[in-house]
Amino acid sequence: MKKTNHSKLKIIPLGGLEKIGMNITAFEYEDSIIVVDCGLSFPEDDMLGIDLVIPDVSYLKNNIQKVKGFVITHGHEDHIGALPYILKEMNLPIYTTRLTMGIIEKKLEEHNLMRSTRRKVVRHGQSINLGKFRIEFIKTNHSIQDASALAIYSPAGIVVHTGDFKVDYTPVFGDAIDLQRFAEIGKKGVLALMSDSTNAERRGFTPSERTVGATFDRIFAEHRNTRLIIATFASNVDRVQQIINTSYKYGRKVVVEGRSMVNIISVASELGYLNVPEKTLIDVDELRNYPPEKTTIITTGSQGESMAALSRMAADIHKKISIMPGDTIILSSNPIPGNEKAVSHIINEISAKGADVIFQDVHVSGHACQEELKLIYSLVKPKYAIPVHGEYRHLKANAEIAKNLGIPKENIFILRSGEVLALDENSADIVDHVHTGEVMVDGLGVGDVGNIVLRDRQHLSQDGILIVVLTLEKGSSRLLAGPDIVSRGFVYVRESESLMEEARHVLTEAVEKCLMSRHADWSKIKNVIKDTMNDFIWKRTKRRPMILPIIMDV
Amino acid sequence: MKKTNHSKLKIIPLGGLEKIGMNITAFEYEDSIIVVDCGLSFPEDDMLGIDLVIPDVSYLKNNIQKVKGFVITHGHEDHIGALPYILKEMNLPIYTTRLTMGIIEKKLEEHNLMRSTRRKVVRHGQSINLGKFRIEFIKTNHSIQDASALAIYSPAGIVVHTGDFKVDYTPVFGDAIDLQRFAEIGKKGVLALMSDSTNAERRGFTPSERTVGATFDRIFAEHRNTRLIIATFASNVDRVQQIINTSYKYGRKVVVEGRSMVNIISVASELGYLNVPEKTLIDVDELRNYPPEKTTIITTGSQGESMAALSRMAADIHKKISIMPGDTIILSSNPIPGNEKAVSHIINEISAKGADVIFQDVHVSGHACQEELKLIYSLVKPKYAIPVHGEYRHLKANAEIAKNLGIPKENIFILRSGEVLALDENSADIVDHVHTGEVMVDGLGVGDVGNIVLRDRQHLSQDGILIVVLTLEKGSSRLLAGPDIVSRGFVYVRESESLMEEARHVLTEAVEKCLMSRHADWSKIKNVIKDTMNDFIWKRTKRRPMILPIIMDV
Repeated sequence: MKKTNHSKLKIIPLGGLEKIGMNITAFEYEDSIIVVDCGLSFPEDDMLGIDLVIPDVSYLKNNIQKVKGFVITHGHEDHIGALPYILKEMNLPIYTTRLTMGIIEKKLEEHNLMRSTRRKVVRHGQSINLGKFRIEFIKTNHSIQDASALAIYSPAGIVVHTGDFKVDYTPVFGDAIDLQRFAEIGKKGVLALMSDSTNAERRGFTPSERTVGATFDRIFAEHRNTRLIIATFASNVDRVQQIINTSYKYGRKVVVEGRSMVNIISVASELGYLNVPEKTLIDVDELRNYPPEKTTIITTGSQGESMAALSRMAADIHKKISIMPGDTIILSSNPIPGNEKAVSHIINEISAKGADVIFQDVHVSGHACQEELKLIYSLVKPKYAIPVHGEYRHLKANAEIAKNLGIPKENIFILRSGEVLALDENSADIVDHVHTGEVMVDGLGVGDVGNIVLRDRQHLSQDGILIVVLTLEKGSSRLLAGPDIVSRGFVYVRESESLMEEARHVLTEAVEKCLMSRHADWSKIKNVIKDTMNDFIWKRTKRRPMILPIIMDV
Repeated sequence: MKKTNHSKLKIIPLGGLEKIGMNITAFEYEDSIIVVDCGLSFPEDDMLGIDLVIPDVSYLKNNIQKVKGFVITHGHEDHIGALPYILKEMNLPIYTTRLTMGIIEKKLEEHNLMRSTRRKVVRHGQSINLGKFRIEFIKTNHSIQDASALAIYSPAGIVVHTGDFKVDYTPVFGDAIDLQRFAEIGKKGVLALMSDSTNAERRGFTPSERTVGATFDRIFAEHRNTRLIIATFASNVDRVQQIINTSYKYGRKVVVEGRSMVNIISVASELGYLNVPEKTLIDVDELRNYPPEKTTIITTGSQGESMAALSRMAADIHKKISIMPGDTIILSSNPIPGNEKAVSHIINEISAKGADVIFQDVHVSGHACQEELKLIYSLVKPKYAIPVHGEYRHLKANAEIAKNLGIPKENIFILRSGEVLALDENSADIVDHVHTGEVMVDGLGVGDVGNIVLRDRQHLSQDGILIVVLTLEKGSSRLLAGPDIVSRGFVYVRESESLMEEARHVLTEAVEKCLMSRHADWSKIKNVIKDTMNDFIWKRTKRRPMILPIIMDV
């Protein structure tokens, strides 16, 4: 082993693997910590009523004097969404590219954090110094503009973090990924490559965003006589640009619908990331001035989200636009895992209205497939591989690629949240495990809903609740009123009248008997109520509603 | 228009399109009704706590004197699952093929309906007479054996119903689909073809089930040193047969795990649909007598169902089998729409345990793709096309195929539940609409959970419930006890103590004020409680728990 006169670099994912979307990774070297990305996650199906999930950053709080700031790779929710919540707890500067910063600033405004948050816009090719670290931003391609890979220079060595990326040789806007720079840094010797695993199970190469433009051209040419409604991801500005270009070419006016899309489009236009030919964009109220076949509507809702513009148009509850027979609707996206049914639902709904739906071959991914990953590994030639961004299966597929390219198995790390990987040119090991977790956001409450509450919501959602109330005489414990049974979410009241009558009967008997015994304290009475009701209801219905006894005394 | 001396044939779907899985269609001619299939559906995501959904068959009940019986195409849940429930309401005979009947009989036994239900096993090529109808069973191929198409002969003409089918020229067991018979009947002149739409969006031809066998052979050859655990659909006996054959070839013993799979395998073996070489099947307890690499475990759970054997093996809660590092797990199925996330979850879980998962190219569909549909249309040459089995998008894709094959648009019908299509060689029109619907099964309750109950469960699941109880003095309406607030599924009690204290304060004031007014009846008090609490809680938390006021008097 070589002698070194430096400490080791520590890499600590504070979220990500266990909760997809919560991308946040701490890099620590001696007295310096930088944090790459700060994403949020959407609730799992069993997190009833929860709006968002954000990372537990206790580790950063406990080491706040070391933390130099957030370095953000790109402007997607799973990389920036938790920022406003975390910034309320600790005031840290943000470093990122221009469009990404523009999108973050919209959030900061909403949360009233603009004044308090220091922000520095960084250009691709530029570096920033944060404590013992130097961080260089490298141009990449992704389904949002201004995405960056990061070269993180530390005294222990260089780590290259790809962010989310693909290799697009012919991007719609701006430059292709800076492969030369990846190669140059690779030549210097790179300690570790942390690369996007999302598409690591897919063979081949992700097609250029520009291929979608060619498809649009063909569809527009074939649909000169119908209105076109195109749904895509709000943040995919290049996609929107191509729809606008094609609409312009075919003499169509363009309306943009959906709050999140309008927001991002306005930021992108202001900052010069979107070029709209004059008089092409019109307001939704101007639609009536043009024949339908001379209009294109770009909208949110390609994932079948029930509150998004497209769903509202399909259900005739959109204020200004309804889908009509003869319309052609293009879903320019693939369903995100978990959304397949919702997407199918909207396709059915639109078809049933007599409109046509095009959803095959009108989308390309923003993530690198296997051949692109091999390319990056081969340019960077890292000593260690640390697959990031994806579910376990994807990280494992990425690890498999690294192995096949000759990186020894023991130099490949799939890190779980909180694992501390300490590394330098001599060795890399998991040396520690710090506290991490998920914090649930429900309405204004951040972290006030936990497992007990969720378990109750689950229970309530399955069979509803039966509330048993009774009033006792203070002192004597004589039954003055009740037991009465009130139910919600159990069965139709009219269906259950006789059942409830019988339950009340059984219950009264049990309670009276309990009251006659000597040791009838409230907790005992409550237990008798719960046991009696559970038994009775299960026998009669094979259901287990929540039983909630409430006792009052007067 | 030709003069006819016959009535029209009526085709009435009593389920199916709006609720995928609830396949049940009535064919009515004068005083005769036959019912094709009787499937159940699984609850949608918003049907909280519901176990199953079955069709509302009021129409059959109201015409019970006409109904001759159930004719069943094959033994999948979405074609037979509602039978036991419906048979409890009306005693009708069942006509179907041997294996299908064997699977149905298992259900009848469970529901204690064997004695009361008349059953007749029909062979392929055989016909039965039911009232004015003759029904011929025609051999097809599908992902379960003994599937049939039906030729339904009526005085108004012949309808061919494909059931669920694919064209498999080289099936694993038994004969290929009887294409000659389709052609022969087509030659006679067919009024309408009702054909399976499931894969109508997919180009080309579904590969033979036998191709999966070839894949198994390759995988077994490459994995001679690991245990193999293969998950597939319980009812796919041919798939199980191929796994058994390949295991035998490679000298492996086979264990079958999972209740539904054990059930179907035992029926199939008894009836001779599965041929197991001697001493190949072993009991799960015998596993320990063999080296892992000499065993294959066939199991349920390929859809990631949390209670199925595979999930329990992965989570180490299966009594006999745990997944170990080095195991190879094959998911021999594709995710059914809606199950994608669950399947991904189990892949992640298994990968994280250090086992390998194979899930690509180890499954073929049981449904016909576009080229097969074209083949059947071209053999049968129907006057009318009535796409069946699938979501609206699939029926529409099937309709598109029919149109491209030259069937006039006005002769193609996508029927909604309850629509009555009356047809003969002269015309076909929707002439009526009968009552249909969904009946939800929850525990022992059939139909006692309706929309109000579901809405309550939804509400409870999102933000929980706040119960406000108070006791009034009879007559005077003086407040004797309370208001007390009890919550479930809202927030942690310890987090909300001060909030609840404040709420009680606000509430007491509002109630006292209300009691002082003249017209303080209970409903008014309850409204005051609801409004006050809703306001207060929304302002403070941006949540809307259910507010349930309960008043007692003594």
